[in-house]
Amino acid sequence: MPPKRRTPPDGISDLTIARLSIYLRCLQQLEAEEMVTVSSQDLADRFHLNSAQIRKDLAYFGEFGIRGVGYNVRELMDHLIGILALDEERRVVVVGAGNLGTALSHFSGFNTGGFRIVGIVDSDPQKAGRRTPGGMTVEPASRLTEIIRTRKVHIGVITVPSAAAPRVFDELVAAGVHAVLNFAPTQLKERPDVKVRNVDLKVNLEFLSFFLRHPQR
Amino acid sequence: MPPKRRTPPDGISDLTIARLSIYLRCLQQLEAEEMVTVSSQDLADRFHLNSAQIRKDLAYFGEFGIRGVGYNVRELMDHLIGILALDEERRVVVVGAGNLGTALSHFSGFNTGGFRIVGIVDSDPQKAGRRTPGGMTVEPASRLTEIIRTRKVHIGVITVPSAAAPRVFDELVAAGVHAVLNFAPTQLKERPDVKVRNVDLKVNLEFLSFFLRHPQR
Repeated sequence: MPPKRRTPPDGISDLTIARLSIYLRCLQQLEAEEMVTVSSQDLADRFHLNSAQIRKDLAYFGEFGIRGVGYNVRELMDHLIGILALDEERRVVVVGAGNLGTALSHFSGFNTGGFRIVGIVDSDPQKAGRRTPGGMTVEPASRLTEIIRTRKVHIGVITVPSAAAPRVFDELVAAGVHAVLNFAPTQLKERPDVKVRNVDLKVNLEFLSFFLRHPQR
Repeated sequence: MPPKRRTPPDGISDLTIARLSIYLRCLQQLEAEEMVTVSSQDLADRFHLNSAQIRKDLAYFGEFGIRGVGYNVRELMDHLIGILALDEERRVVVVGAGNLGTALSHFSGFNTGGFRIVGIVDSDPQKAGRRTPGGMTVEPASRLTEIIRTRKVHIGVITVPSAAAPRVFDELVAAGVHAVLNFAPTQLKERPDVKVRNVDLKVNLEFLSFFLRHPQR
């Protein structure tokens, strides 16, 4: 019996969605190792996840896996790719050609699996015209709206200083962007039709700090 | 009755620990707004979290909050700071002075709340000696072990290319580092006494991709 995928209900938590990506990455690794099936328990043990949580997260989206056997690795990957909408191209613009923006613009993860960086802009006239190590040319920030419209950008990545971030956000939204990844250390407020992901790199250091104090875990 | 904190049990999932950081950030925001108490439900509603999960995550570490009233914001913050061991200084070295490493070395989140970047190194002789925008001087990678030992480094941040990451990891561990934050797109294997956090920036794009397809969520 093929797995039944269902339309996800409203109100799914952001954490659930972020975990689906992590499950996908784990499954990709298992597929590279030529594993065909995996149980939620094996998946949890192998990657330090929570098996009940895996089952609960997946249950929002359909009936996957066979009781007592587990999930077909390839099939579940395909479902997660579909759920996360990674089966269509998503065009991304980076605003801010400082160190972080430049690094992200040629970061392999941002140019594979459906994602494509189609522009990087900066308001500093000294930066416009420069070529990034990834081979893109930094364009002036004054062209941001035009770039978004002509290149049909879906996602804006903000790597400008905090003070400039709200203005950049407004411009992205006004130009028609509905998804924003914000690395500026300021909380941008979501609007009903715009999803914002504020990335807090510090969480990762705090995570390690815990394990430095509790080394047996 | 003061909250009872208990020693965390073994086997707490990485996701639980990462969520504690997120709870802390939410509480910091509530404190800035001068809120005194908050229920798990209010916290969940406000920040799109899961209230049952909040209660479960916190229960690993003690009895916090009063039934029907909620948590004291300041008190719970202090507990999370203690649990995450953010009450002591953690010295960090960045390996790789490319765009990402340079950006992280002067990223405010990596130099506050207990964390302090004490060095940035690169194996490229052209980069050694350069000053970063944050005012640090890039040192040669050949000095990495000495830097770790003399500056008592706790955490190593890897921002070198994938091919070089395993060698850098071995050197960090041999020099006595027990916690590693890896931005190289390669999975580094944990050892019993070394905690590795592989940071997958792509998760954030995939997260946005989901909401582009399911805009009502």
